[in-house]
Amino acid sequence: MLTRIDHVGIACRDLTATIAFYESAFGLTVASIEVNEAQGVKEAMLHVADSPAGSSYVQLLEPLGPDTPVGKFLDRRGEGVHHIGYGVTNITAALAAVGAAGVRLIDERPRHGSMGASIAFLHPSSMGGVLTELVQAPPT
Amino acid sequence: MLTRIDHVGIACRDLTATIAFYESAFGLTVASIEVNEAQGVKEAMLHVADSPAGSSYVQLLEPLGPDTPVGKFLDRRGEGVHHIGYGVTNITAALAAVGAAGVRLIDERPRHGSMGASIAFLHPSSMGGVLTELVQAPPT
Repeated sequence: MLTRIDHVGIACRDLTATIAFYESAFGLTVASIEVNEAQGVKEAMLHVADSPAGSSYVQLLEPLGPDTPVGKFLDRRGEGVHHIGYGVTNITAALAAVGAAGVRLIDERPRHGSMGASIAFLHPSSMGGVLTELVQAPPT
Repeated sequence: MLTRIDHVGIACRDLTATIAFYESAFGLTVASIEVNEAQGVKEAMLHVADSPAGSSYVQLLEPLGPDTPVGKFLDRRGEGVHHIGYGVTNITAALAAVGAAGVRLIDERPRHGSMGASIAFLHPSSMGGVLTELVQAPPT
């Protein structure tokens, strides 16, 4: 079902500074910067690698305010890994399959994610503490 | 410098149960199970995907005891993402480069990791809270 590790989502307090750090320390390049009002974040996708199944990214997340999910995460846990995103080819089928396997879904239906992807989150309470995202890349 | 997201390292209390969960919910398959006494863990590599630069895995980590690094992590944070591993082609060169960029190194020199890889950890205090591992796959 999973085609790749699509991205590692990392919560940070200062998006600009954290982008600059990943650029200088690892030579990563910015593929996109977007504001996602629905999720309350400003986010950057930094390109790591390509594969036949799609690309992989470091996703940096700066909250738009303290009462957003990522803002609350930073208050509670500090900066660090916020979630893991895995690629799937058919997100609707994947959601049905993981739901049938007993995974608690945050999103019953896919919604809009970074760079035109369709995404859905799975609840960390049924994922061994890992907030997990499924990602179907947009048609190319 | 980074060739892929090599693995997501996830701390768990029950390796057997967590392997069974990832197998049933996502269809992942076990590539290896090893005990690493030096790191105080029993660990499983679950295969996610292949790419020209190498494979990607979910790495599940069960501590060998409460006084190990992963044991202390579980006490402090509970189950969840423990670290992120990125592939590199030359770990000695990569360590020199990230050190020169100001990253604090846990391992000044590479050591033995899962499945014959050479690995080195970078300190979360200089990585925005993310314990980060560099991984050079063994010669094939």
